[in-house]
Amino acid sequence: MSADGKISSVERCQVSISGLEDRARVDLLRAESDAVMVGVGTVLADDPRLRVKSLSSREARRAKGWPEDPLRIIADSRARTPSYAKVLGPGCIVAVTDSASQERLDRLSSKCEIIVCGEERVDLTELFSRLFDRGVKRLMVEGGATLNWSLLKLGLVDELYVYMGSMLIGGENAPTLMDGPGFKDNFPRLTLSCVERLDEGVLLKWSLPSERP
Amino acid sequence: MSADGKISSVERCQVSISGLEDRARVDLLRAESDAVMVGVGTVLADDPRLRVKSLSSREARRAKGWPEDPLRIIADSRARTPSYAKVLGPGCIVAVTDSASQERLDRLSSKCEIIVCGEERVDLTELFSRLFDRGVKRLMVEGGATLNWSLLKLGLVDELYVYMGSMLIGGENAPTLMDGPGFKDNFPRLTLSCVERLDEGVLLKWSLPSERP
Repeated sequence: MSADGKISSVERCQVSISGLEDRARVDLLRAESDAVMVGVGTVLADDPRLRVKSLSSREARRAKGWPEDPLRIIADSRARTPSYAKVLGPGCIVAVTDSASQERLDRLSSKCEIIVCGEERVDLTELFSRLFDRGVKRLMVEGGATLNWSLLKLGLVDELYVYMGSMLIGGENAPTLMDGPGFKDNFPRLTLSCVERLDEGVLLKWSLPSERP
Repeated sequence: MSADGKISSVERCQVSISGLEDRARVDLLRAESDAVMVGVGTVLADDPRLRVKSLSSREARRAKGWPEDPLRIIADSRARTPSYAKVLGPGCIVAVTDSASQERLDRLSSKCEIIVCGEERVDLTELFSRLFDRGVKRLMVEGGATLNWSLLKLGLVDELYVYMGSMLIGGENAPTLMDGPGFKDNFPRLTLSCVERLDEGVLLKWSLPSERP
């Protein structure tokens, strides 16, 4: 996020907040994960690939008998992921709900695995449970603001890595690290486990208490 | 601000984000300033006193021949500061515009000095210039989100001190460090001059380039 807590501008265009070191860090985190997840808003705004970029990391995964890329998971209640999205392909799972139209599901079904999980909003607790049973023990979530909120609200997050870049974005309507309705009281407390300068900014690692709701 | 960049909750109730060390730091910054400033939104939400709390800091100011408290300045275009606000009293300046009603000005005028500066919105550049001429060389701004935006947008800020507390607040409508319309491009770049753990969180000091618009 920017120094003022935004992950994009009011126009929701992709803003380059981090630098080379931070991008390498994110790529390494991906490489160490069983799955990588984003919300459909991020797919629509940024069209990310969500693959591991580093050739040595890909090689290291292959040497362990793992696929070169972690599973790629989209939380997408109404199946709004476009059929040309770069994230699609083998190893991609789109988690949808009963409210997704059959037409959209038909369009996606040849390009990814579809998991139906929930009625109106993806039941993330159930989804995580099913993924765990399939071997996803380490799941990396790369936002955006709405998915971050849902997961933190549900207490499904163990660690929060926040890179703060050396820029200001501003805007009361710009997306932040965690949007949604927000907490009104009983604000979750974090423990700061690491502070590290990176590129022109700073990386903060927070851990969340395991006994949360 | 919270670890997710909020300075209050969606209900705009005062949230205790910082701890004792950070409050002492803020008090010391106040004591080292010629004036302290907030926007009227902060007065309405928090009713701050904006005085120096530390007795030794007050004594140190007195020993230098300074008033025990810096000037207290409210940016308040339409003179909405309530007449019972704790910030009022000798040494308080309320900066208003031509659009402030005479009735409100009459109610405030016995409790503070009033500076009329601008037509609809307080002309902050002009206000700063007038304050400078009166000896205000070091001005500390304590928010909120709208005043921060206006000053950063105008390039009137030299340094930005951000304390990040160990909590999450969330909420797309919660106030952040810097709201307003936001930048759409040409995002201001900062230089990270200091990173320091404080209480359970971290204090970041950013400096802004002096050649900004």
